Amino acid sequence: MTIRELDTPAMLIDMDRLEANLDRAARYASSHGLRLRPHTKTHKSPLVGRMQLDRGACGLTVAKVGEAEVMADDTVPNLLIAYPVWGDAKWTRLVGVARRTPVSVALDSTEVAEGLKRHAARAGVGIGILVETDLGMRRCGVAPGKRLLELARAVTRMPPLRLEGLMFYPGHVNLATDDGEKALQRLGSDLAGILDDFRRDGLPTDTVSGGSTPTLYESHRVPGVTELRPGTYAFNDRTQVAAGACGFEDCAATILTTVVSTPRPDRAVIDGGSKTFTSDSMRPIGQDGFGQVVGMPGIRFARMSEEHGVLDLRGHEGPPLRIGDRLRVVPNHVCVAVNMHETAHGIRGDSVERSWAVEGRGKLQ
Amino acid sequence: MTIRELDTPAMLIDMDRLEANLDRAARYASSHGLRLRPHTKTHKSPLVGRMQLDRGACGLTVAKVGEAEVMADDTVPNLLIAYPVWGDAKWTRLVGVARRTPVSVALDSTEVAEGLKRHAARAGVGIGILVETDLGMRRCGVAPGKRLLELARAVTRMPPLRLEGLMFYPGHVNLATDDGEKALQRLGSDLAGILDDFRRDGLPTDTVSGGSTPTLYESHRVPGVTELRPGTYAFNDRTQVAAGACGFEDCAATILTTVVSTPRPDRAVIDGGSKTFTSDSMRPIGQDGFGQVVGMPGIRFARMSEEHGVLDLRGHEGPPLRIGDRLRVVPNHVCVAVNMHETAHGIRGDSVERSWAVEGRGKLQ
Repeated sequence: MTIRELDTPAMLIDMDRLEANLDRAARYASSHGLRLRPHTKTHKSPLVGRMQLDRGACGLTVAKVGEAEVMADDTVPNLLIAYPVWGDAKWTRLVGVARRTPVSVALDSTEVAEGLKRHAARAGVGIGILVETDLGMRRCGVAPGKRLLELARAVTRMPPLRLEGLMFYPGHVNLATDDGEKALQRLGSDLAGILDDFRRDGLPTDTVSGGSTPTLYESHRVPGVTELRPGTYAFNDRTQVAAGACGFEDCAATILTTVVSTPRPDRAVIDGGSKTFTSDSMRPIGQDGFGQVVGMPGIRFARMSEEHGVLDLRGHEGPPLRIGDRLRVVPNHVCVAVNMHETAHGIRGDSVERSWAVEGRGKLQ
Repeated sequence: MTIRELDTPAMLIDMDRLEANLDRAARYASSHGLRLRPHTKTHKSPLVGRMQLDRGACGLTVAKVGEAEVMADDTVPNLLIAYPVWGDAKWTRLVGVARRTPVSVALDSTEVAEGLKRHAARAGVGIGILVETDLGMRRCGVAPGKRLLELARAVTRMPPLRLEGLMFYPGHVNLATDDGEKALQRLGSDLAGILDDFRRDGLPTDTVSGGSTPTLYESHRVPGVTELRPGTYAFNDRTQVAAGACGFEDCAATILTTVVSTPRPDRAVIDGGSKTFTSDSMRPIGQDGFGQVVGMPGIRFARMSEEHGVLDLRGHEGPPLRIGDRLRVVPNHVCVAVNMHETAHGIRGDSVERSWAVEGRGKLQ
């Protein structure tokens, strides 16, 4: 089958680029003695998870129990649920996953720990725990200091929970900005302080899990980090290009679209909008537009509604677009874009090598 | 079953409010002699479509052939595909739908008309056509004038296509702004000019389809409009409240979430982010935040990542939030939010009256 035979919009994954992206991160991690536990939120597919494990990943990361259920099987060495899982319904399902695959959970409260402990004890399964600290992201995580240590100590008194170490998310560090380098150094010194405290208290630091795609290849400069948890690196996207983390030639995921309307010479409409790409914008990093049309740098993906993508052609050079033309577009944010598609198509050149269901899509719970 | 038994995040639809919203629009349309052909993009569910038809809707509107396939059945009087459908694969499927249910298609090019004609002729089915004109939305649609008339005339020469009239989308008219009233009047005079041209040429004006939710109840002020195509009005959302189209008490759809982290007194994290709500922002209309927490006006839904919603509690009055608390949130844009959920739960008070699959979800093609 060739790309020409696919209807649009369709999520295409360039397998050569995907493999190169996975290989590069695997080599980096291995050469620095770091473990790689990729976040599967980007691809939501056991097939790509398997490719990551085959390249030496120590396990896989998920956000939701529903994603863990999709990813878990006998051949996955372990799953990290990097999310404070709450409630009897989810704890019951989580323990079900832990019966098949070793599971660790990141949390930032004794409330979550106590619920997990209760369910794990009843089921007779151990669960690894990472306590989450906030090193500047201002999302989840206990700030470094007394409360963080108290939480870690509390977990050590809650078998069958098993404290394994620490998790943080450096998503606030943008090395493309002037403040990025400073933020990375502050993160390193905050982490060093925490690790000193942990060691002084005899708390485990076997796993210190950090690292997201934008800072992936700087992870060795943060002493104490043992494990990386990037997701986007598998596919990359327009945001990562803007952040300097990769080039467009490293973007494995493109959305194949069709021009369905050319109402004026300076405007074309493609058959995908916010229900195909999502409306994730790049305004927070000072760029506009909703994606990059491959090979047509003069086209601005100016606006979108749910099913319409409006292209501003005023800067376009080359032959005018015609109805029926097919354009491939690098999305702003690939993790949310893949989640809009029931199927992903792995391509090499013009061939569709294999198509797979995005099995973790929409697993909100 | 009660709401308490649902896991989160979950899409709740208040049936009393839904019914009231549907009733109000049906009464308005009927009292002004206007037909209502609601856009199902908002609910993507045959069950809600049936409720609309039971209240006198003349048919249903969809954007994609995949949505038409979900909505079509023997009891639906007709479907309008308000989208320039392109390509053999989609035309083949569209003709398949037209064998079960009368179908009309809106288009703005002879290219699309010719493809449809070819497939309709081969299958021996008639297809109604609305030509789409652009009255200020700057998306699809031929500008009023010579080219629009030429397109309409061309369609009359393409049996088994059957020209029925005209479609426009007034999504650019925001009556909450100073320019809104002017935009509505300009739209009316542009439309009057087109209708004069159509009548002079003997082209049909039986169907003049306009009307989206924000301007729904002003539609009678645009002479010549025969049919309304609102979608959002069924559920409403924070954007419609900001546009003055409804109040929060008219918002039927809320997302039930759980507080999973309270890392600081001024911050809580709920278990839904852009993969639950989408990242549709209200910045274009000058408001910030990603949703409104019901009953807690002082909470600002400040930031989100894929699975985290970060609440700024600095303005919150009342007891502090605790892990495990459940919050209901009115989304910024309900049409894209519903599309993120596999299931919607129809509630009355605290009871879950019935749950249904969002069958049109993710039908991108």
